[in-house]
Amino acid sequence: MKKKITPKIMPGFMELLPAKQLVFERMKQIVQEAYESYGFVPLDTPILELSEVLLAKAGGETEKQIYRFTKGDTDISMRFDLTVPFSRFVAKNQNDLAFPFRRYCIGKVYRGERPQKGRFREFYQADIDIIGSEKLSVVYDAEIPSIMYQVLTKLGLKRFHIRMNNRKLLRGFYQSLGLEEQSADILRLVDKIDKIGSENVRLGLLDLKVPETACQQILSFVEIGGTVDEVLAQLADLGIENESFKTGCEELKTVSDALTALGVPQTHYKIDLKITRGLDYYTGTVYETTVDDYPTWGAICSGGRYDNLAENYTDRKLPGIGMSIGLTRLFDLLDDAGLIYTNGQTPTDVLVLPMGDGVAYPLMVAKTLREAGIKTEVYFGDVKFKNKMVYANKTGVPYVVILGEDEEKSKVVSFKNMTTGEQETVPLSEVAKRLNDCLSARPVSPVITQV
Amino acid sequence: MKKKITPKIMPGFMELLPAKQLVFERMKQIVQEAYESYGFVPLDTPILELSEVLLAKAGGETEKQIYRFTKGDTDISMRFDLTVPFSRFVAKNQNDLAFPFRRYCIGKVYRGERPQKGRFREFYQADIDIIGSEKLSVVYDAEIPSIMYQVLTKLGLKRFHIRMNNRKLLRGFYQSLGLEEQSADILRLVDKIDKIGSENVRLGLLDLKVPETACQQILSFVEIGGTVDEVLAQLADLGIENESFKTGCEELKTVSDALTALGVPQTHYKIDLKITRGLDYYTGTVYETTVDDYPTWGAICSGGRYDNLAENYTDRKLPGIGMSIGLTRLFDLLDDAGLIYTNGQTPTDVLVLPMGDGVAYPLMVAKTLREAGIKTEVYFGDVKFKNKMVYANKTGVPYVVILGEDEEKSKVVSFKNMTTGEQETVPLSEVAKRLNDCLSARPVSPVITQV
Repeated sequence: MKKKITPKIMPGFMELLPAKQLVFERMKQIVQEAYESYGFVPLDTPILELSEVLLAKAGGETEKQIYRFTKGDTDISMRFDLTVPFSRFVAKNQNDLAFPFRRYCIGKVYRGERPQKGRFREFYQADIDIIGSEKLSVVYDAEIPSIMYQVLTKLGLKRFHIRMNNRKLLRGFYQSLGLEEQSADILRLVDKIDKIGSENVRLGLLDLKVPETACQQILSFVEIGGTVDEVLAQLADLGIENESFKTGCEELKTVSDALTALGVPQTHYKIDLKITRGLDYYTGTVYETTVDDYPTWGAICSGGRYDNLAENYTDRKLPGIGMSIGLTRLFDLLDDAGLIYTNGQTPTDVLVLPMGDGVAYPLMVAKTLREAGIKTEVYFGDVKFKNKMVYANKTGVPYVVILGEDEEKSKVVSFKNMTTGEQETVPLSEVAKRLNDCLSARPVSPVITQV
Repeated sequence: MKKKITPKIMPGFMELLPAKQLVFERMKQIVQEAYESYGFVPLDTPILELSEVLLAKAGGETEKQIYRFTKGDTDISMRFDLTVPFSRFVAKNQNDLAFPFRRYCIGKVYRGERPQKGRFREFYQADIDIIGSEKLSVVYDAEIPSIMYQVLTKLGLKRFHIRMNNRKLLRGFYQSLGLEEQSADILRLVDKIDKIGSENVRLGLLDLKVPETACQQILSFVEIGGTVDEVLAQLADLGIENESFKTGCEELKTVSDALTALGVPQTHYKIDLKITRGLDYYTGTVYETTVDDYPTWGAICSGGRYDNLAENYTDRKLPGIGMSIGLTRLFDLLDDAGLIYTNGQTPTDVLVLPMGDGVAYPLMVAKTLREAGIKTEVYFGDVKFKNKMVYANKTGVPYVVILGEDEEKSKVVSFKNMTTGEQETVPLSEVAKRLNDCLSARPVSPVITQV
């Protein structure tokens, strides 16, 4: 006999068994439906791109992680996020698109990282962005987190916060301290305050030659908290006369008011002046979303406002606002915390079990059920009835239809509720309606059991 | 200003603009719903696999086309079909799966072919397979083409044929002629008869040292036609006393009867003794689906029965039956033939256009509509009303809601049907229901306009 090869996969790749895959699919569907309910268009760009195009901007850590190879004379890279291919797409097709252009993409991206817990080499991101031509109203900065609120709520997440800040406000603040030149380094440092503590931030600031009084002002600034109105009032009280600072405050106010109009409760968003987002290209509103009971998870969904989506590919000014959920990572975190709700390993609603050799009647019953929108499977195979029930139990199908000669003769159908054990026999002409009633009485399974 | 990089993609990659992408998404959704209506489980295997695992069986042409590269010490390949990763998955997880195991997968696969019209380097396949442990009833051989009939019909395809044959029948036939040894070469040759003509097949057979009388028998055999019953009667009339041949005939009869029970009309399937399917591993029923008016398209959907899904990875016997649609190729063929039905470049049902500066009322109206399941977008931006209507027309949105100060004061909503130009004003409390009635009165767009 030929030597067998071990059927293993690479570390860092998430591959789910049916029960969990069904939950992951439901998660993707909830995200997709929420994105489409706001009129976002699905886009599907290639996973492979020319390296010269994909890596126009990348460098350093990102570039090292990329799966890059040569085929023939072509230098090819696998996409490492959904934003760069999107910017390439918009630049390429700008004359065919209607602006503001709203797109979503739920797709796999690749990073050849060292495998470690929670780090994936292949993972799904679910991105939404709105792109304007030349300009884009700041009201859209409220729409994006409003969608994320919908998504996370529909997934079953209860206690989470969308934290917002504004880079114009930050820039103005550091300008007012005369620290604009060091501001990039300062932001990087302040971003770590929850991890390293305020004393270490103070020491770091001193290393950056920030004067002692300014250190104190920075540390007081990032500690400003409370409701949106309270934070805005405290910011006003700072009395900073700087245009960028004032614009930032106004934008936060506009976004907050619009969030209220969109029905997002203040229990689920706040202004957090510590949030900066590392990436250089954010220029206005920035967001990070954290789960209250799991602070170690960090941000599960983040993004912000940028001035130029596609500056590597076009001179046209394309400002935009976007957010992204790392679906694979989120699923993995939820799963590790025991919060994923699985419910059987099949999408089947009804499993038809023929008792005899007859094939036509079971197939016809199945056809009737499918035509009524019921997901139906028929078990064929010359095995004992007991074994058929073992299969039914293993898959976790909610209803089983049992068809023997008697049923066929009298044109009736017997079915069993696999949860309660109750059995019922109804005429063939009524079975689809009866089973649809039973199925719609079952509660819809959430993705997340509780948080 | 920094030099710009041309935002181009590689040849052989399909990237669609919004209007067509929306149709492609609808196509995927129809396939997915049909697969799930028969109780198939979605699986999602990695796009990257270890080369030693993925290429356990591959060789020759396939291996040359594979995107294969090294990262660190790891020899990695991109999947070139969905079957090999699936067989690896089943072997790996065989103890956790319930058999018969029914899975579908709609995913991208990669082949580094020379780019030419109709050949893709990245393309979607949509596979379904049912896998048994040790054995699997032949009735499932009817279920698979029945699903494909549903899929193609729901896509809007009208005139097509699922052509079936059986490898046991073929093996028995060639055994009866004493040609079993050459049968692989003969099958390859006969498979080309529609392309090269029967005279060339005859010459080829002679080259293979097939005796003149046997040549005649083979050519008569493959020309057998008519309804299923007529073909089966003619096969019986051949009087061939061979077990494999008889089993093949019986299996075709079983499959045909079951297809009838499943409601698949004989206008859409037939026995075609010319179909052989190149792959070695098919052992029973084989299928190819052709579109009547486009014979040059070849098979748009094909598959068959195999005895050992995963023999490279496990000793366990895992017989199965499956079919696959090449979605990217099918979409491209339909598009080239002008048969794709596009209908606007947004999923949005209703576009809200604020007339003034007020933000809260438009956002609240949009929220009300979304909560009623209406896909709603709001246009914000300091542009003339005319320009907002240009956007509405460019996206092809079916309804526009216009909100000025009057509407806000009287808590009413005015909307316009963009197809007919009709306008209507209704109270805010009734707008969701009224617009839902309008929207559900619109016909559902097909994917394919006609064939």
